[in-house]
Amino acid sequence: MAPQYAPSLRSRLGPLLFVLQTGFILIFAFCAEVDSNVNVNGSTFKDSYTDFQDVNVMVMFGFGFMCTFLVRHGFSAVGFNLLVATMTTQWAIILNNVESWYYSGKIRLNMRSLVVAEICTVSALVSIGAVLGKTNPVQLVFIALLEVSGFVLNEWLLLNLLKVRPGNSMMLLHIFGAFFGLTVTWILYRKDSEQRFEKEKVDHKSGLFSMLGTVFLWVFWPSFNSALLSGRSPVRKLECVCSSYLALAVSAVTAAAVSVIFNPKGRFNLLHLQSCILSGGVAIGVSMPVVLQPWEAMLIGFAAAILSTIGFHLLQVGTTIKHGNCVLLLIHPKRALNSRSFLFFQIHMLLAFQCHDTRAILSTHGLPGLLGWLAHFILLIRQCDDHTTAVRFAVFHICTLLITITTSLSMGILTGT
Amino acid sequence: MAPQYAPSLRSRLGPLLFVLQTGFILIFAFCAEVDSNVNVNGSTFKDSYTDFQDVNVMVMFGFGFMCTFLVRHGFSAVGFNLLVATMTTQWAIILNNVESWYYSGKIRLNMRSLVVAEICTVSALVSIGAVLGKTNPVQLVFIALLEVSGFVLNEWLLLNLLKVRPGNSMMLLHIFGAFFGLTVTWILYRKDSEQRFEKEKVDHKSGLFSMLGTVFLWVFWPSFNSALLSGRSPVRKLECVCSSYLALAVSAVTAAAVSVIFNPKGRFNLLHLQSCILSGGVAIGVSMPVVLQPWEAMLIGFAAAILSTIGFHLLQVGTTIKHGNCVLLLIHPKRALNSRSFLFFQIHMLLAFQCHDTRAILSTHGLPGLLGWLAHFILLIRQCDDHTTAVRFAVFHICTLLITITTSLSMGILTGT
Amino acid sequence: MAPQYAPSLRSRLGPLLFVLQTGFILIFAFCAEVDSNVNVNGSTFKDSYTDFQDVNVMVMFGFGFMCTFLVRHGFSAVGFNLLVATMTTQWAIILNNVESWYYSGKIRLNMRSLVVAEICTVSALVSIGAVLGKTNPVQLVFIALLEVSGFVLNEWLLLNLLKVRPGNSMMLLHIFGAFFGLTVTWILYRKDSEQRFEKEKVDHKSGLFSMLGTVFLWVFWPSFNSALLSGRSPVRKLECVCSSYLALAVSAVTAAAVSVIFNPKGRFNLLHLQSCILSGGVAIGVSMPVVLQPWEAMLIGFAAAILSTIGFHLLQVGTTIKHGNCVLLLIHPKRALNSRSFLFFQIHMLLAFQCHDTRAILSTHGLPGLLGWLAHFILLIRQCDDHTTAVRFAVFHICTLLITITTSLSMGILTGT
Repeated sequence: MAPQYAPSLRSRLGPLLFVLQTGFILIFAFCAEVDSNVNVNGSTFKDSYTDFQDVNVMVMFGFGFMCTFLVRHGFSAVGFNLLVATMTTQWAIILNNVESWYYSGKIRLNMRSLVVAEICTVSALVSIGAVLGKTNPVQLVFIALLEVSGFVLNEWLLLNLLKVRPGNSMMLLHIFGAFFGLTVTWILYRKDSEQRFEKEKVDHKSGLFSMLGTVFLWVFWPSFNSALLSGRSPVRKLECVCSSYLALAVSAVTAAAVSVIFNPKGRFNLLHLQSCILSGGVAIGVSMPVVLQPWEAMLIGFAAAILSTIGFHLLQVGTTIKHGNCVLLLIHPKRALNSRSFLFFQIHMLLAFQCHDTRAILSTHGLPGLLGWLAHFILLIRQCDDHTTAVRFAVFHICTLLITITTSLSMGILTGT
Repeated sequence: MAPQYAPSLRSRLGPLLFVLQTGFILIFAFCAEVDSNVNVNGSTFKDSYTDFQDVNVMVMFGFGFMCTFLVRHGFSAVGFNLLVATMTTQWAIILNNVESWYYSGKIRLNMRSLVVAEICTVSALVSIGAVLGKTNPVQLVFIALLEVSGFVLNEWLLLNLLKVRPGNSMMLLHIFGAFFGLTVTWILYRKDSEQRFEKEKVDHKSGLFSMLGTVFLWVFWPSFNSALLSGRSPVRKLECVCSSYLALAVSAVTAAAVSVIFNPKGRFNLLHLQSCILSGGVAIGVSMPVVLQPWEAMLIGFAAAILSTIGFHLLQVGTTIKHGNCVLLLIHPKRALNSRSFLFFQIHMLLAFQCHDTRAILSTHGLPGLLGWLAHFILLIRQCDDHTTAVRFAVFHICTLLITITTSLSMGILTGT
Repeated sequence: MAPQYAPSLRSRLGPLLFVLQTGFILIFAFCAEVDSNVNVNGSTFKDSYTDFQDVNVMVMFGFGFMCTFLVRHGFSAVGFNLLVATMTTQWAIILNNVESWYYSGKIRLNMRSLVVAEICTVSALVSIGAVLGKTNPVQLVFIALLEVSGFVLNEWLLLNLLKVRPGNSMMLLHIFGAFFGLTVTWILYRKDSEQRFEKEKVDHKSGLFSMLGTVFLWVFWPSFNSALLSGRSPVRKLECVCSSYLALAVSAVTAAAVSVIFNPKGRFNLLHLQSCILSGGVAIGVSMPVVLQPWEAMLIGFAAAILSTIGFHLLQVGTTIKHGNCVLLLIHPKRALNSRSFLFFQIHMLLAFQCHDTRAILSTHGLPGLLGWLAHFILLIRQCDDHTTAVRFAVFHICTLLITITTSLSMGILTGT
C-alpha cells in the first residue's frame, strides 16, 4: 500500500537522520542553555506555555492529519509530518539564535524561542504541502530544512534592511511558504514524468481525519496569530483573537456558500471547505498589525474565502475524480482557457510553469496571504497621511518575493542534484 | 453517498448564506467594537481565553464529531456543524448585546461575550441533534438561528421577570434545547412521510469518530460548567470543576454498569455510553449553584446516568439494528406499551406526539437537565428555611417551559411555510 | 465483532460496578470536601487547572485511542479505557488521602489531588496495556484497582523509608506499571491456552486512530512531566518543559531512523513509531530531577529511542503479520536465540517466563524507564562528590522493584482465584 521508494533510499534516510540528529545534539551540547529569565516579552511562564501548546497542537494534529486525504499517504502523512516537524523545529531553534550565539556564545531556550521555532516549522509544513505524494522522505527533510533556512534569512534581511519587526515578518510565512513550495514542485515537475502523480490518489474514506486536522487548525488559529504578541498589551491580544475568530467564522460561512453555488448538484464540496475555511485566518494574520475594527476583519475573511474558493475551483476544475479509481488528471487546457479572463494570474502560472500543487497551498495560503498583504497595504495608506511608510511597505514586500524566489531556485538546484 | 436535496436547494442555500453573512458584517460595521477593558468579570485575558478555547473545542470537535455515527452524515455532519455553529455564534453575539446596543449604540466584544455566544450556540446544537438527518442545511440554519433567538429571549425574560442571574439561566440550555428540538422534530414528523428517515442509517465504522467527539465533550465539560463563573472567586470555580469532574466520572461508570445489565449478551452498548456518560455533566450544570459537597455531585451524576440510560433504552428499544444493513425502525408499540408503567412520560410523548429524536437528545440532555433542576429544587429547599425562594424557583421553571414551547411552536410554523 | 465473554460475566460486571461506585460515593459522602485554599503548591487555580486538563486529555485521548490498533478492540478499547480510568481515579483520590483522612478525618479535594490521582491512573493504564485483548472488563477493573493500590503503597514506602519526595517517586510509574503488567500477563499466560490470543489481531485500518492517540501523548507529555512541579519555581518548570520537548523531538527522529534501518524495504514501521517516539518522554520523566542541560535531555532521548526501537524489534521479530489476515504468532524461538547475545535480558524474559505483551509496554515504558533511572544514577554521581546519596538511590530502586514484584505476584494470585 505504501509507496515504493528506490532501494538506495534505505541506505540514505537512516544514516542521514542519524548524522543530522547527532549534529543537532552536538550544537546544543556546546551552545544551548535554558534561559534563567522566565518572563519573556511580558508573559508569565504559564501564559507562554499555553501559547506554545496551542501552536504545537496545530503543527502536530492540524498539519499532520490535514494531509491524510491521500490514499497512500493516510498513515505515513502523519509520520512524515512528525519527522519533518521535529527536525525542522530543532534546526529553527539554532537558526533563530545564530545572532545571540555569535555575540554571547549561547543559544538561550525559553518558551518564546520554542514558539518562534514552531512558527518557522509551520512555514516549512506549508511548502511540504505542495510536494507531498511526489517526494521521498529524504527529499522532504531536505526541502523542509532549506525552506526554514530561507525563511529565517528572509526575516533577518527584512529586519536589517527594512527594520520590519519579527512579529510582522513572521506572518509572511504563508506567502513565503506557498511560493517556495510552488517553485519546488515546478522544478520537480519538469524533471519527473507524469506517472509519479499516480501516488496522489485521493481517498474519501480518510476524509474525516483530514477534516479533523482542518478543524484543529481552525480552532487554534487565533492562538497562532496572537502567540507572538507581547503579554504587556492584553488589549492588543484581545483585538487579535476577536479579529481572527470573526475572520475565520466569516470565511467558513462564505466558503460553504461559494462551494454550494459552484457545485452543480448543490452539495458541499468538502475539499473546498477544508482548503478555504482557513483563508480568513491566513489573511487576517498577514494584515493583523493594522486591523482595528471587527468589521474590517470580517470583510477580509469574506474576501479571502471568496478568492480562495474561486482559486481552488479554477485550479482543480480539470481534476476529474472518477468514481472507481479516482485518478487525478492535469488541468484541462480548454476549461482553463475559457476562464482565463477571470483569474489570469493562476492560469498563466499553470500553463506556463506547469507546476502541480498537491494540497492546493496556492489557494489555501498563497492567495489569502497576498490578499492579507493587500488589505494591510490599503489600511495602512488609509491610516497614515504620508506616503513614506506605504512606499517602504511596497519595497519590503517586493524584497520578500525576490528573496523567496531566489532561495527557492537555489534550493531547487540543490534538490535536483 | 451524500443525501440528495431538492434542486431548489442549491438556488437557496448559497444566496441565503451570502445575505445573512453580509447582514452580520453590516451590523458589526456600524455597531461592534473591541472592549478596551480586558479584565472582565475578574478574569485576566489569558484565563478567559483558555475558557473560551475549551468551549470552542467542545462546540467544534465535540458536537461536530459526535454526530458522525449516521452513515450518510459522517462527512457532512462535521461540515454542517461548523457552518451552523459559526452562523449562530455571530447571531448570538449580536442578540446578547442588543440591550447595550440600544443604550450605548455599541456592541462590545470581549472574551466573555464570545464565551456567552458559544454557550448559546451549544443550546442550538443540542436542538439540531434531534432533527439531523431529516432536514436540509437551509432548514438547519433557520432552526439554529430561531432557537438562539428564543434562548436569548428566554434568558432576558428570566432576568427581567424573575431576577435570575444569566449564569444560572444559561445552564437551562439543556432543557430549552432538548424541548425545542423535540417540538421541531414533532412538527416535521407530522408533515413528512416516514421514508425520509432512511437517511438516518447508523454506521458502526465511523463509531470511533463519534466516540472521539463524545470524549472531547466529556473532557472539557468541567470548563463548560465553570466558564461563566467569576474569576474573583476561584474557590467557587474549584468547587464547580471538582463537582463536574466527579459527576462525569460517576455517570461514566454508572452508564457502563446499566448498559451491561440491559444488554442480553453482557456487552457494552457504545451508543448507550456515548449518550449517557455526559448526563452527569448536564445534571450538575443545571444544579451547580446549590451543590456544595462532592458527594452531592456524585449522587446527582449517579441518578442522572441511571435515568439517562433507562430513558435511552426505552426510547430505542424498538430501534432494531439489523446485522447487514442496519435499518432504523420506529418504536415497537407493543414493547413500548409493556413498559408504559415504567416511564409513562416518554411513552406518552412517543405514542401521542410521534416525534423522532435522531441523537437521543431527550435522554442525553432533556431528562438529565430536568433531574438537575429537581436536584437544584430539593437542595435549595433543604438549604433555606423560608419558602419564598422555592416558590420563586418553581415559577421560574414553569416560565422557562412555557416560553420554550411557545417559541418552538411559533418557530415550527415558520419552518413549515 | 466484539469479543464473546463468558455468560457469567454479565451477572458480575454490572453489580460489581454498582457496588464499587456506591462504595466510593459513601466514602466521599463521609469524608471528602473541597479544599478552601485554592493556591496549592504555589500555583493559582487556573494554572493548576490547565495542568489537570492536559493530563486528563492524555489519559482519555492518549491511552484510549492508542490501543485502538487491535481489530476487535478498536471500539471497546476507548470504552474500557474510559471505564477503568474513571474508576481508578476515584480510587486513587481516596488512597492518596488516606493519611490526611486518618489524621484529620477529611479527604481534601483540590486540583493537585486530582492531578496526582490522574498520574496514578496513568500507571494503571500502562499495566493494562500488557493484558488488553486477553482479559475481560471485570479482570481489567480489578487489575487497575490493585495496581493503583500497589503504586500508592510503593510511593508511601519510598517516602517513609527513604524520604523520596512524591514528585520523584511518582515518575517511577513507568517502571512500576511496566513490570506489574508483565507479571500479570505472565501469570495469565501460564493459566490460559494460546487460543485466547486470537482476540489480539492487529488492524491497519484503525491505525490512524492509534496514531492520533500517540500524538496526543507526544504533544502533552511535557505537561505530564511538569504537572507536579511547584508553581513557585517557574524556572524549574521551564527547564522541565524544554528538556521534555527536546527529548521527545530527538526520540521521534531517532525512532524513525532506527525503524527505517531495520525495515528490509526501507519503509517506516508505524508500530515502531507509535511505541518508540514516546520513549524520550518516559526516560526524561524518570531522570528529570538531575537533568540540567538541554543536551543531556537530548542524549537521553536519543539513547531511549534506540533502546526502545531495538527492544521492540527483537520482541516482535517473530510476530509475523500476514497480508490477508494478519495473525499474531508467538516469538520464533530460533530468531530469538540468534539474537540472544544482543539483548540477553529480554530474550531470557521471553523464553523463561513466556509472557505476552500486547501493547509492547516493556519497550515503550519499561526499558526507557530503566534507562532514565540509569541516567539519573550517572548524573547524580557526576554531580555530587559523596557516595551516600548514590547508595541511597540504588537501595531505593531495588526496593521499588522488590515491592513491584511482590505486589504483582500477590495480585496475580488474587486475579487467578
